[in-house]
Amino acid sequence: MSSEDAREKAPVEPFRVGLLGLGTVGAAFAGLLEERADEIERFNGRRPEICGVLTRTRGDFEEILAEADLLVELIGGIEPAREYLLTAMRSGKDVVSANKQLLSQHGEELFETARQHGVRLRFEAAVAGVVPVVRVLEESLSATPIERVHGIVNGTTNFILTEMDRGSSYAEALAEAQRRGFAEADPSDDVSGRDAAAKMAILARLAFGTPVHLNDVRYEGIEHLHATDLEYARELGLGLKLIGTAERRGGGLSVRVHPAFLYSGHPLASVSGTFNAVTVESEVITEITMSGPGAGGRQTAAAVLGDVVSVMTGGAQPPAAPLALPLIEDVESAFYLHFDVADRPGVLAAITQVLGEAGVSIKSVVQRGMGENARLVMVTHPVLQSSLRTAIDRVAAFEFVRSAPRAIRVIEEEFI
Amino acid sequence: MSSEDAREKAPVEPFRVGLLGLGTVGAAFAGLLEERADEIERFNGRRPEICGVLTRTRGDFEEILAEADLLVELIGGIEPAREYLLTAMRSGKDVVSANKQLLSQHGEELFETARQHGVRLRFEAAVAGVVPVVRVLEESLSATPIERVHGIVNGTTNFILTEMDRGSSYAEALAEAQRRGFAEADPSDDVSGRDAAAKMAILARLAFGTPVHLNDVRYEGIEHLHATDLEYARELGLGLKLIGTAERRGGGLSVRVHPAFLYSGHPLASVSGTFNAVTVESEVITEITMSGPGAGGRQTAAAVLGDVVSVMTGGAQPPAAPLALPLIEDVESAFYLHFDVADRPGVLAAITQVLGEAGVSIKSVVQRGMGENARLVMVTHPVLQSSLRTAIDRVAAFEFVRSAPRAIRVIEEEFI
Repeated sequence: MSSEDAREKAPVEPFRVGLLGLGTVGAAFAGLLEERADEIERFNGRRPEICGVLTRTRGDFEEILAEADLLVELIGGIEPAREYLLTAMRSGKDVVSANKQLLSQHGEELFETARQHGVRLRFEAAVAGVVPVVRVLEESLSATPIERVHGIVNGTTNFILTEMDRGSSYAEALAEAQRRGFAEADPSDDVSGRDAAAKMAILARLAFGTPVHLNDVRYEGIEHLHATDLEYARELGLGLKLIGTAERRGGGLSVRVHPAFLYSGHPLASVSGTFNAVTVESEVITEITMSGPGAGGRQTAAAVLGDVVSVMTGGAQPPAAPLALPLIEDVESAFYLHFDVADRPGVLAAITQVLGEAGVSIKSVVQRGMGENARLVMVTHPVLQSSLRTAIDRVAAFEFVRSAPRAIRVIEEEFI
Repeated sequence: MSSEDAREKAPVEPFRVGLLGLGTVGAAFAGLLEERADEIERFNGRRPEICGVLTRTRGDFEEILAEADLLVELIGGIEPAREYLLTAMRSGKDVVSANKQLLSQHGEELFETARQHGVRLRFEAAVAGVVPVVRVLEESLSATPIERVHGIVNGTTNFILTEMDRGSSYAEALAEAQRRGFAEADPSDDVSGRDAAAKMAILARLAFGTPVHLNDVRYEGIEHLHATDLEYARELGLGLKLIGTAERRGGGLSVRVHPAFLYSGHPLASVSGTFNAVTVESEVITEITMSGPGAGGRQTAAAVLGDVVSVMTGGAQPPAAPLALPLIEDVESAFYLHFDVADRPGVLAAITQVLGEAGVSIKSVVQRGMGENARLVMVTHPVLQSSLRTAIDRVAAFEFVRSAPRAIRVIEEEFI
């Protein structure tokens, strides 16, 4: 081909991206797409460009939809994001979203619509910051049945726990997180575990093909943790983290979020600050751990752009029909227990009797005198959460108990 | 559609996989494909099946090639694997390989052939065990220019260093690795760093688009490490690992493998036993670390099957034309130095003068008396490897030096 021919060659059509929302992530995405368009074209032969932007004050959804090859939703919240995504998919358009609220509460409606219309629905940016866990789960699924996905999926709470581990109180650590922009003025969505629960609902759907609504996820947050819990963790050589878990249990699926002590060699124990990390376990691969910073605007934008490119290059698939593992609410865990009690004869016997009656089996006990009182620290063998709760409530009712008993799950070494 | 219609519906053609090689990985791959065929069909609408197997004693390459949609090469070594892959790609067939020797020594020929014939060449299983670093690099590339890829990519040497850290000598640790099947009878490919160098050549090509041959990678192994180096690492709160690095340096690309001290919070410092881990760094994503067990037969087979599925589903692309960053051989690092010398006046002055003349700037010095001798431990500021080598050779020539000086690179905190 002569160079003249080459110049006259019909240009490849650009890949037109309609952008809904131009907040922090939307603006970062638009900037990154512009920066990276040359490189993406070099690799994939087609150049992405933004064909229209919808904000509260400008742009027309129908016009953008008609022109776009794909829509990127970065509005957040439920409506109008939900309606826009459904309308786009019903029009046969592929979509990318970073909206964890929407996916964790209306995921099945979105997946089903994508499936019916044979379009791609991508959402890497909704979970675990820059860590490409959505992609790895989707691709691993074919080669190996997953047993468990667990991880640290909320950077705000991990930052607070890291600060507490360095000696801050919960209130001080939260204030520091707010000062540095890691926590909202109203931090309840993060510290209650609800944000992590939304992400675990999404990961569970991906890993196990089973519909999981945010409301199906049991979650406990970090608001009730004490500095002394962190002290105990240090003494015992354990880390204390807010862990989200989705795992097969006796033919069913358990999805939950709670603080847990981790032995020091655990791949999640060394994850500090605002970092996120997720471990995927299966018989075939044993385990893969992925970690990286919780998302800021540009990191989230990079994940969104990665989704756009995977649709452009034909890599992504419409979702498969769901499976249905039954959801299990009450699962066994080992617990760390901590009772402040009057230091007198019969107390240990009374407590261990109550625990025994509820089926709680003790693995180790340490008793420490503290003047007129004593502190009992126990680690249990795995026990159903409901049985443990019953036992703890009965112990709390004893007149010799000096403060509310503390119970924190312990994740023990299994692999390696 | 009535159920009768459904029964008469023309079945979708299976996806035919030709398998070259039926050793440990080949047999595991054949088994895993059979196990997972239902699930893969459910997700992707097409069922993979093995249409032919070539071993030294049975099967006909031409026949298998004619029937297959894709060839999987698990023979290993250079020939005949190279010739089979080239022939397959020239016939327009996609290929998957786990062959790191071949890719690190004939990669450009393979990539160029794939590009010319518009076929896919996949090789996730060639690098870092079950850790999906090849996929993440390929997909991240579009969204973010990579600054550095570094990691622990040889499980055998990491196992040996972990054992040495627990107090074994190098010889004991190597013997234990051999006893447990982690090291070959002739371990030189692993312990010399050559195996890691091959993997880094492949990762560098992926991350930076620049052709890198195994011969372009400078490597040092672990054979010359002493138990005392590990003791120092422990005392200083550092980890000692065999680290492969590929990174941009002043407009060029440096690819190298060497032992290095890591500060204890480094994401690679806590990777122990036969595990592999790779950190990818870029301005946009900051860093992602992925870790998992170094590959056994089934893990490697799972990575190969993942590649097969990505070709089936149209996700993989033929390779792009290479870029060409100049390769840089001599790079700056901080070094830990350790000299055993006669304990007498003037020795420290003589050594620091030689270091200063060679441009080696000292960050810290500790001197310890040991009877008639003394041990000098220094950490330098970053210095060119060639300058450091010159200085060390001059120091080694002093008559007051009691044993060969030791120099090990130090990787200091940069991110986080």
